[in-house]
Amino acid sequence: MISIDEARRLVMDRVEPCPPANVSLVEAVGHALAEDVKADIDSPPHAKALVDGYAVRVADLRQASVELQVVEEVTAGQVPTQSVAAGQATRIMTGAPIPAGADAVVMREQTDLRQDQASEWVTISTKGIVPGTHILELGASFRKGEIVSSAGTLVRGIEVGLLGEVGCAEVKIVCPPRVAILATGNELVHHGQRPDPGQIRNSNGPMLVAMTSRAGAEPVDLGIACDDHDELAARIRQGLDNDILLLSGGVSAGRLDLVPEVLSSVGVQTVFHRVRLKPGKPLWFGAIGSSSKSTLVFGLPGNPVSGLVCFELFVRPAIEAMSGRPNAAVMESCVELAGNFSHRGGRPTYHPGQMRVDAEKTTVLPLQWQGSADLRALTDANCLIHFPAGERSYGPGELVKVRHLDAD
Amino acid sequence: MISIDEARRLVMDRVEPCPPANVSLVEAVGHALAEDVKADIDSPPHAKALVDGYAVRVADLRQASVELQVVEEVTAGQVPTQSVAAGQATRIMTGAPIPAGADAVVMREQTDLRQDQASEWVTISTKGIVPGTHILELGASFRKGEIVSSAGTLVRGIEVGLLGEVGCAEVKIVCPPRVAILATGNELVHHGQRPDPGQIRNSNGPMLVAMTSRAGAEPVDLGIACDDHDELAARIRQGLDNDILLLSGGVSAGRLDLVPEVLSSVGVQTVFHRVRLKPGKPLWFGAIGSSSKSTLVFGLPGNPVSGLVCFELFVRPAIEAMSGRPNAAVMESCVELAGNFSHRGGRPTYHPGQMRVDAEKTTVLPLQWQGSADLRALTDANCLIHFPAGERSYGPGELVKVRHLDAD
Repeated sequence: MISIDEARRLVMDRVEPCPPANVSLVEAVGHALAEDVKADIDSPPHAKALVDGYAVRVADLRQASVELQVVEEVTAGQVPTQSVAAGQATRIMTGAPIPAGADAVVMREQTDLRQDQASEWVTISTKGIVPGTHILELGASFRKGEIVSSAGTLVRGIEVGLLGEVGCAEVKIVCPPRVAILATGNELVHHGQRPDPGQIRNSNGPMLVAMTSRAGAEPVDLGIACDDHDELAARIRQGLDNDILLLSGGVSAGRLDLVPEVLSSVGVQTVFHRVRLKPGKPLWFGAIGSSSKSTLVFGLPGNPVSGLVCFELFVRPAIEAMSGRPNAAVMESCVELAGNFSHRGGRPTYHPGQMRVDAEKTTVLPLQWQGSADLRALTDANCLIHFPAGERSYGPGELVKVRHLDAD
Repeated sequence: MISIDEARRLVMDRVEPCPPANVSLVEAVGHALAEDVKADIDSPPHAKALVDGYAVRVADLRQASVELQVVEEVTAGQVPTQSVAAGQATRIMTGAPIPAGADAVVMREQTDLRQDQASEWVTISTKGIVPGTHILELGASFRKGEIVSSAGTLVRGIEVGLLGEVGCAEVKIVCPPRVAILATGNELVHHGQRPDPGQIRNSNGPMLVAMTSRAGAEPVDLGIACDDHDELAARIRQGLDNDILLLSGGVSAGRLDLVPEVLSSVGVQTVFHRVRLKPGKPLWFGAIGSSSKSTLVFGLPGNPVSGLVCFELFVRPAIEAMSGRPNAAVMESCVELAGNFSHRGGRPTYHPGQMRVDAEKTTVLPLQWQGSADLRALTDANCLIHFPAGERSYGPGELVKVRHLDAD
């Protein structure tokens, strides 16, 4: 059996990013940029006022109180027509361009206005105004030609705003992989049906469909296949049209665990079978295809928690890398244990945990768990706690490694 | 000016959950359950084997090595037809029901098989087999009638699996709120256009559309409105058909900041205007409607980072509560500062930060930032650091409060 790290390396060695596509700015959200995006303008395009007030010359403000003549008003969207000479000021709104001659803005709340027949006059008695006060200089955020967001960046709301600022009507993103999901087993019935004695509902199929879609990829649900060589072969061939094929069940040592041999018979090459991991040991991984187009095939164990752990450790990093985010792989972080816990096992174990954030610190509680068939315990989990192989007692406050799960 | 906590309380007081809807199991992902879900079966529905091997009677295993007669084979999906008597065993596959009489399963790898003309015989020399070994008892995960997932739970992959197990073909979820987004300002042009002098592209509109969709709500993009009373009133009325209306810009003290007065003129009641917060002080909040249907209206500041901070602190919790997840509000957690930092300001400040997780601990680095118009600095941010009002120097390792942003 190989180690978790070795298995992940063997998976990631076979990952190729999916091809790019052009989408509208708002459709790009949740995808990775396929190329660097450069600014087509300076931002801001002009020195601009950060507050509503008066654009002034700092040299005029040497006395404790000074009255300046208001020469015009400039609102956002307008362009100043007058420059500000000695003894003058321009009334200016947030976002409007700073007129020539002015080198600071005084907030409106800190001024008094007086009007006579010929003109408006503003009195300023504020201290501490220096050149640049309440002004955002031309290009302070970025300059024309600069890369504002680089290939591989996940497009969130922030990036949509920034790409909008530089005029990206279309964005080149990496297409997410298509992931086919096939549940296998004679005992399975559709989750909408009532199982007869000996049967169980197919819950792994819908679970993997949902996890795939939450991971940002495009699920293709192939339903259920019986433990029959020809049926399995036909459904697997169908699944190989996609970037990834996930099979659930049929990879253990049982007489009806046909998945590895059927995969071989349709030309999928075995990369590894079984990983030193609990739960998830029976994991099978292989690949098929040419240099231009290949499909990664994961034979996930049929026990639901085993399947979930294998998805988190191996399938999710593959999806992220294929989606153009090779560095998105979730690291494990160290968190303090909330209580006592004893762990014993011959393999490294991922145990369901609940992280709690309070005012002072984050702690993690190992959840009561009946093993790999007990999915219910996972509904309270927001992480998996990674215990190394061996036997050990842990006390409250000890640091353990955790891997976050999809959570609130 | 009111405090952040007071403002949030005033918003949350006016939040009503959206109505429920029935969707298919897989469509439920990302939504909150509108009602408790009860199991319609015991899980597992029968005591079942957790490994491939032989179902045995522990009483037969008192000697160091024992040979048992194999009476039948049961695979997953089948039902045993024979009970296991003294001196007998049943070959059993993972997931198959335990036959009557048997009280443990021995792994296949720990047995030897011999066949004679009449029968198959299995030799077992494993120690440590006790009643229950490798068996998951009937109902160990949950019993019929038990609540397996409660109202308000976010449906992730795990919950889809569990709801599939209890036969939910349809799931009653809380509909996400519809959120209309209207950017205001004479200076704005569509992000696909090239701005003339004095103009800027509307980047806030697309940013808020994307943030709304990433927060799980349904965005309705109303485009750009000029600073004109009648145009604004017409577009605002259009927006009030939705659960939430977000306006961007027009809420400061400038002469063209018409949003508060136009909102009043169409009947939206002011709840508060201005919050002791940086950036985000000009935030306006109000509501309109009857007891059966109301619309929350947020007048967000036009500076992009101010708008983003107000969205995170006030709009996101409202969306989550309206989506049926009243307890999902993101808490602030304490993280160690990565370096020295000096903060000075008259209001509590949210400063862009980058949290880094390494093997031993999580630290946070305050990012270089030019203020509320500088969205670019936020592209490296995965959190906002909350500094209290006042002037203070912080050293490496000091605990500061952070609020996570939508991130990788």
